[in-house]
Amino acid sequence: MKQWELQCSRCSAKLPFRYQDMKCTCGGTLLVSYDLNHVAQTFTKASLGQRYPSMWRYHELLPIHDPAHIVSLGEGWTPLLRLPDWESKLSLKRLWIKREEQNPTGSFKSRGFSVAVSLLKQAGATKAAVPSNGNAASALAAYAGRAGIQAFVFIPMDCPSLIVDECPMYGATTVLVDGFIHDAAAIIESGRKDQGWVNVGTLKEPGRVEGKKTMGLELAEQLDWTLPDVIIYPTGGGSGIIGMWKAFLELKTLGFISGDMPRFVCVQEEGCQPIVDGLMHSLGGTSAINTASTPVEERIIPNPTGMRVPNPPDLELLLSIIKQSGGTAIAVSKEQIAQATHSLGSEGISSSPEGAATWAAMLVLSDRGWLRPTDSVVLFNTSHAMKYAKLGASAAIPIIRTYDEFMLYRSI
Amino acid sequence: MKQWELQCSRCSAKLPFRYQDMKCTCGGTLLVSYDLNHVAQTFTKASLGQRYPSMWRYHELLPIHDPAHIVSLGEGWTPLLRLPDWESKLSLKRLWIKREEQNPTGSFKSRGFSVAVSLLKQAGATKAAVPSNGNAASALAAYAGRAGIQAFVFIPMDCPSLIVDECPMYGATTVLVDGFIHDAAAIIESGRKDQGWVNVGTLKEPGRVEGKKTMGLELAEQLDWTLPDVIIYPTGGGSGIIGMWKAFLELKTLGFISGDMPRFVCVQEEGCQPIVDGLMHSLGGTSAINTASTPVEERIIPNPTGMRVPNPPDLELLLSIIKQSGGTAIAVSKEQIAQATHSLGSEGISSSPEGAATWAAMLVLSDRGWLRPTDSVVLFNTSHAMKYAKLGASAAIPIIRTYDEFMLYRSI
Ligand SMILES: Cc1ncc(COP(=O)(O)O)c(C=O)c1O
Ligand SMILES: Cc1ncc(COP(=O)(O)O)c(C=O)c1O
Repeated sequence: MKQWELQCSRCSAKLPFRYQDMKCTCGGTLLVSYDLNHVAQTFTKASLGQRYPSMWRYHELLPIHDPAHIVSLGEGWTPLLRLPDWESKLSLKRLWIKREEQNPTGSFKSRGFSVAVSLLKQAGATKAAVPSNGNAASALAAYAGRAGIQAFVFIPMDCPSLIVDECPMYGATTVLVDGFIHDAAAIIESGRKDQGWVNVGTLKEPGRVEGKKTMGLELAEQLDWTLPDVIIYPTGGGSGIIGMWKAFLELKTLGFISGDMPRFVCVQEEGCQPIVDGLMHSLGGTSAINTASTPVEERIIPNPTGMRVPNPPDLELLLSIIKQSGGTAIAVSKEQIAQATHSLGSEGISSSPEGAATWAAMLVLSDRGWLRPTDSVVLFNTSHAMKYAKLGASAAIPIIRTYDEFMLYRSI
Repeated sequence: MKQWELQCSRCSAKLPFRYQDMKCTCGGTLLVSYDLNHVAQTFTKASLGQRYPSMWRYHELLPIHDPAHIVSLGEGWTPLLRLPDWESKLSLKRLWIKREEQNPTGSFKSRGFSVAVSLLKQAGATKAAVPSNGNAASALAAYAGRAGIQAFVFIPMDCPSLIVDECPMYGATTVLVDGFIHDAAAIIESGRKDQGWVNVGTLKEPGRVEGKKTMGLELAEQLDWTLPDVIIYPTGGGSGIIGMWKAFLELKTLGFISGDMPRFVCVQEEGCQPIVDGLMHSLGGTSAINTASTPVEERIIPNPTGMRVPNPPDLELLLSIIKQSGGTAIAVSKEQIAQATHSLGSEGISSSPEGAATWAAMLVLSDRGWLRPTDSVVLFNTSHAMKYAKLGASAAIPIIRTYDEFMLYRSI
């Protein structure tokens, strides 16, 4: 067997590496499959303990074998922060937050694009394009810049302008699209052949899932090769969930971990919740919100965040992971997200709306008794608050010249 | 001897720990002095190799001994990224950039405040205040939030609004000051006793220098216990330079490193360059720019960055470090900084104006032949570009709906 090849997540057919057409004829998604016997020869707990703290410490489980092809900007090995005060407030065994915003591009998207762009470099590609709500675009832009590859990014026009502005800073050709992320994707598909772009959209190539997989590998290693009971993750396209699930399966096969999988909780924002609706539907229920039958004027318009992906590329795979793991999917409101940003802020953590959504979901699930006192829980803060900032947000900040003026302002 | 006490950097007098009045009667700055014989018992290369990658792996060289007092948000062990393409372009032996923007508060200030706030917690303090150009304020706000201490931050009103806005997000009482950082400091001094604030301004307490010292410890460890030939650092108050210098002295005494100290280069922005002017003056020259005799209307107005500190609290100590190390100080222009932001962006690195200033300085020093082909050089990117962003910066980004519109825009 080769060191790795592609394998269908549904029918297990094996195929050689290719860009594009990452769907199997059966409709399943093609993922990287490793020769784990070969991996086991060098990938040991002891050897890992000696390696540099970067996601590339897991190189045997990544699809790049020549170090010269690795395109790195310092991604991975983000802190896992415990929140002991909230463990007692919510009666949880353990509560951690994984600070993915500390990645080089300010979001967890660095991981996927480090691998995806390394694969491009290895293949000698010169142009790559991505449809994105912002963070994937800025990550492609940065890693392509580092690798000397031309990046073309297509972003819905209502996405956070600070994230949009990062893309030209990294040298990417940057275009706003009057539409959703799938409209941006359609534009790329129209131009792909003409322009010689490799489309590195979610599940269009194998690298991004592999890169996100390192979140799961790292989590297991940071918890000394145990798994948490629950992972709460803000989900859009779903490659993070798929990646972590794959990480844990590989670690199990390698004998690094054992026992139950964590229950995966996918969090979305009310108004764009295909995973929540899909789960409800597959369990025989119907979703009240935003189904096709809801008149447009009654629909909730969701914020443009990474969770706003109306058509996840492999919903079936996501639902099967949620169900197999005993997890769930939950939609939270704009107001719950705003409140959660504030709560995390008071703990000293700058959270993006996506990260804050996991906090909001945790509160609901705790309230409902879905989270239990025996549960250890990990939240993913996938990006910085800053990236979503609007100028003038705190226009109420007073301006003073003297201590007396400070006292005056305090007394009002 | 105690495990640590304060020692004057000038006359070597030893004193017990105190807040405030961190100047010795001789005018020198009080720094933490450790019993290095005691440290050496557990602080070994082998033991360090086994520790978690966080700045607290150096706990023997930090002034907190009870782990329960450590206030951590996941700071330190930031990536040291090599830039091989530029090594050949500039004929340098090695070129690295230390990505300090990947700290929890998006700047290297996380390090100092992790230690300073831990000391506050240890001492049972409940209120702390800081004058700051932004990043120190947001770091105090975050760490104080984590520790349950009330933070009061005073920021010149022209500082970047996104950084200002972070402070209330972390729960700090936030005030803008119509003046410079020393005006903000004067307000805190006026109110300090009344309000019960501990002033955690630069060199007002010992923790921040100790925290920044870890940049030096880390650098040495990441370079396998060698030192670079040159460190180029954006300097304001100067605690980073003092901290790294102290780190290398301690490591030398401990026998971890040997040989020459790196040449320290302090970078400032034209128009506010007390270190550059001070060095020139102490070498017998005079500075053309912005001396007191320059009429106001002819002065260059510098950007509000962390380098804009008109009165560094211990200029003498800074100058002595620069001179002892064979280093220099250099002022770069707004335009050079803007150009450098662009160059770093094309390498995939989001750099604050301060980080970009080190790049600009490197180009000048390389051009002048001050940097030599045998030199290994480390730049410090102390914060993210994002934090300084202005909305509408890239208003020229086109909006499209179809691939045809993309082609239309490309053809113009
Ligand atoms: C900050 C952030 N969080 C979460 C997501 C969703 O990630 P995934 O595609 O893994 O579902 C995105 C995707 O854009 C994102 O940018
Ligand atoms: C981003 C940044 N770089 C550099 C500096 C200057 O640091 P130092 O006080 O160590 O001279 C500051 C201080 O505010 C800063 O915020």
